[in-house]
Amino acid sequence: MADQPLTSQPIWQKLASSAEKMELPEYHLRHFVNQKTRVEKYSVSGGGLFYDYSRQRVDSQVMGYLFELAENRKISEKFNQMMTGAHVNVTEDRAALHTAARQFSDEPVYDNGYNVIPEIKAVRSRIKEFVQAIHNGDIKGSAGLPFRDIVVIGIGGSYLGTEFVATALEGLGDKRLNLHFLSNVDIDSFGRIASRISAETTLWIVISKSYTTTETMANLNQAKTFMKANGVTPESHLVTVTSKGSPGDDPKNPALATFHMFDYIGGRFSVTSAVGGVPLSLYLGYERFEKLLKGAEEMDRHAAEAPHQQNAPLIAALISVWNNNFLGYEAQGIIPYSSPLSKLAPHIQQLYMESNGKGVTAQGIPLDVNSGVIVFGEPGTNAQHSFFQLAHQGRPFPIDFIGTLNPFHKGYKQTSKGVTNHQELWANLIAQSQALAVGKPAGNPANAFSGNRPSSTILLESLSPENIGRLLSFYEAKTVFEAFVWDINPFDQFGVELGKTMASDIRNEIAQKNKNPGYEFDNRDPVRKFYLETLFNLKP
Amino acid sequence: MADQPLTSQPIWQKLASSAEKMELPEYHLRHFVNQKTRVEKYSVSGGGLFYDYSRQRVDSQVMGYLFELAENRKISEKFNQMMTGAHVNVTEDRAALHTAARQFSDEPVYDNGYNVIPEIKAVRSRIKEFVQAIHNGDIKGSAGLPFRDIVVIGIGGSYLGTEFVATALEGLGDKRLNLHFLSNVDIDSFGRIASRISAETTLWIVISKSYTTTETMANLNQAKTFMKANGVTPESHLVTVTSKGSPGDDPKNPALATFHMFDYIGGRFSVTSAVGGVPLSLYLGYERFEKLLKGAEEMDRHAAEAPHQQNAPLIAALISVWNNNFLGYEAQGIIPYSSPLSKLAPHIQQLYMESNGKGVTAQGIPLDVNSGVIVFGEPGTNAQHSFFQLAHQGRPFPIDFIGTLNPFHKGYKQTSKGVTNHQELWANLIAQSQALAVGKPAGNPANAFSGNRPSSTILLESLSPENIGRLLSFYEAKTVFEAFVWDINPFDQFGVELGKTMASDIRNEIAQKNKNPGYEFDNRDPVRKFYLETLFNLKP
Repeated sequence: MADQPLTSQPIWQKLASSAEKMELPEYHLRHFVNQKTRVEKYSVSGGGLFYDYSRQRVDSQVMGYLFELAENRKISEKFNQMMTGAHVNVTEDRAALHTAARQFSDEPVYDNGYNVIPEIKAVRSRIKEFVQAIHNGDIKGSAGLPFRDIVVIGIGGSYLGTEFVATALEGLGDKRLNLHFLSNVDIDSFGRIASRISAETTLWIVISKSYTTTETMANLNQAKTFMKANGVTPESHLVTVTSKGSPGDDPKNPALATFHMFDYIGGRFSVTSAVGGVPLSLYLGYERFEKLLKGAEEMDRHAAEAPHQQNAPLIAALISVWNNNFLGYEAQGIIPYSSPLSKLAPHIQQLYMESNGKGVTAQGIPLDVNSGVIVFGEPGTNAQHSFFQLAHQGRPFPIDFIGTLNPFHKGYKQTSKGVTNHQELWANLIAQSQALAVGKPAGNPANAFSGNRPSSTILLESLSPENIGRLLSFYEAKTVFEAFVWDINPFDQFGVELGKTMASDIRNEIAQKNKNPGYEFDNRDPVRKFYLETLFNLKP
Repeated sequence: MADQPLTSQPIWQKLASSAEKMELPEYHLRHFVNQKTRVEKYSVSGGGLFYDYSRQRVDSQVMGYLFELAENRKISEKFNQMMTGAHVNVTEDRAALHTAARQFSDEPVYDNGYNVIPEIKAVRSRIKEFVQAIHNGDIKGSAGLPFRDIVVIGIGGSYLGTEFVATALEGLGDKRLNLHFLSNVDIDSFGRIASRISAETTLWIVISKSYTTTETMANLNQAKTFMKANGVTPESHLVTVTSKGSPGDDPKNPALATFHMFDYIGGRFSVTSAVGGVPLSLYLGYERFEKLLKGAEEMDRHAAEAPHQQNAPLIAALISVWNNNFLGYEAQGIIPYSSPLSKLAPHIQQLYMESNGKGVTAQGIPLDVNSGVIVFGEPGTNAQHSFFQLAHQGRPFPIDFIGTLNPFHKGYKQTSKGVTNHQELWANLIAQSQALAVGKPAGNPANAFSGNRPSSTILLESLSPENIGRLLSFYEAKTVFEAFVWDINPFDQFGVELGKTMASDIRNEIAQKNKNPGYEFDNRDPVRKFYLETLFNLKP
């Protein structure tokens, strides 16, 4: 069954029929949300979060079919295989053991017959010791000064998740330490940071599994030049997070410390490994990083163990497939009503679009349905004053609203119009999802709202490290559950290779021109030649 | 003609036929880009920018039809009517004179028979004087200390454009001044800023046309409480940018200074008015703000005067309509290969989606075609390591690549692999647009790239204030040209009203509950009641 094209499977066809039914006026969301127990029936609490899908365009028949689809595609089995070390990353013949990164029990998890838990725990212990030594001043810069700035050099999966967590928990961050992210190869990224730091009090953390990522190595090169010019050494100012045996783990390239990352954890799933562990522990303290892991672990267990009907990330994945493949929505908004969650959307954008933006099944067969959608978002209420005009009256797209019951800053009790700022934020959170769902008819079409625009709401109790860990794991699980429905491999990214190869060819031409100003650019590709000449100011 | 539904017009049908033709293999972009003079033919320099659409899925026939569509819809005439004060914002019976905000000549521009140029110039002069007095220390805080932090309170159109420009020109910013944006009503936005500033050295700028925007007033309320608690007064620490006669321009609410904004300039088009003028002049110096205006003015003139075939924003608008309505793309990426342009996408997201996310024509007739698409983006090369997997192998979406010939930081000459960081950035910029266009066949579908994915490239000579002004005006003009093709009103935003009304009702319930803890929430709307009880911890 699972090997047949998706669209030819009977359950897919049943869902397609249900989608047609959903277009009938009596299935408009405004009727659903009027049902007295709609929220209670179409919401779950699990893994420490609350997930409400009552304003999604589903009824019990649709949900029944979606759960049947989940059974059919064996997505829970695959999730458990993933957690126990199966090589679910089939194209690269690798395990995907990000869940092991936050396991606290000693229960073994085997990759190729090798128990990975001891080495994961060893890395955690080393992070704890190292961070303690930095915090209590046992380790200082080469001039004997304590560190005041941390610059994390890394891009994509070595950057976005950590930035999300650091921003979400910024209020708990060490006030004596500034955290900077140097990701873009653009020299203006480096220049901006270099103009703000002092070499003697700066610790650089270079994060790259292969230690060959072009952008990261180019930025490291700038950083080393900067260190040298200012008389400090990598031995005292540079930390590497990289694979065992990579050029970043080589005594020929000395560093203050090296922490290992492993093949069985992919970049965009790596924030709970040393990738996030080293910078976040330095910034927040190791104990808080451990709390983040505990929250993620709780959600992992929920995702793995909860029955389908109670499983928050699994339901979220099914809703996402429903919206995409059956109702035809091409994008997904992520709108946290919490400004510290401002980097959630960019992180999920990477996590989801790089994992699920695929054209073939895990076996390399072209998909007969569309895979992942476009993910974007900004915090509310800001988004309301930006692009929500289109969300209400233009082309519809589903939204995940995220709310926190308690803000981080609890001291401000001043009210406006009888409510605190936090209550005002909630009034808008509640209003937007309802307005999108129910709409409003009007005599003048310019003032009419068609409604029937779906959304989910996720609630966190507070902005604690545990809850941020739960939210991270929720979206990771949702992403892979969706991939398992389509039977795509969410852990590879062959789609980025062509651009890399072409950039490499172009770089070679630029390098030749740098060496030999008389070099003539290859003219087989007229567009490329045009831009190379433009870069070298050879154009009028 | 123009009053008939779009889809029934002969030119629309000709374009629809051309779009079918474009699906044929011989019209794949890989063939177009191999043409020797493709870039030269399908690019224009205008208004100080270079715009290349050679990797869009168009040929001379399609462009001919698109120019015919532009003629047919009289989009240039409408643009000129807009610039000369016609009430193109028909639903609100207002002019849309953002172009007058950057006019330097004395040529009159009339709104309802009243020449607006003198009052616009008067505001500019007052900004110049005020900023000078702050910069040379004639105006200080109430404790006699110079200002060190500026907090801009405003949301949506009173915020995003200014943030874009301030970020783009940050390298030129006054190093003694920190610029903060307080937009979200979330108390965590206020709390974060309050924890970083000192009341005695902080200047608050409140920006709101009506001076009633809920979020802005709630944040102002917090700011006033903060000032009072720290013994400083609004008379010395608060500047308002608002309409003449609003509560922010009332002697009963004293302020250090008030600058006027006008009904004939809409929020999302207002960065070149006092909205951007006051904070940007404080941060960058008035002269640089004026240079920004001069760049914008140059692009305005280009948009108004250049023949269609040479008109960069007009061609960009036609390409956008083509991609959306004929080729069926639902989203648009904005990918600047320049980290200082990191806030371009959020600004254009608002400008475009709020302007063009409409369901009816300017006359209130439901549209027979889709209007605006979803706009999103992150800087390259970061985006390559985030969501470009989907761009290459998942569902396609058109991209605007933006490059700068020169970076801001020119001092770093260190090379990696024979090239500077800036050259590496360009190697990627060139490679990505080509890889998307040409693709690459492969035996194994997992490694195949279908290509034929369209993009444009916009080049700036440098990150100067003039060029940022040109880029701003380019996207403003493109946005309204598109609206004029559809005959929608890009200047209203009735789609945000329903959410506001509902939030107001919910706020009233919360306020009642605050006053009277025994208050029972309205149970006609079960979802709303559920969330209100959750907020008040009345749920298990």
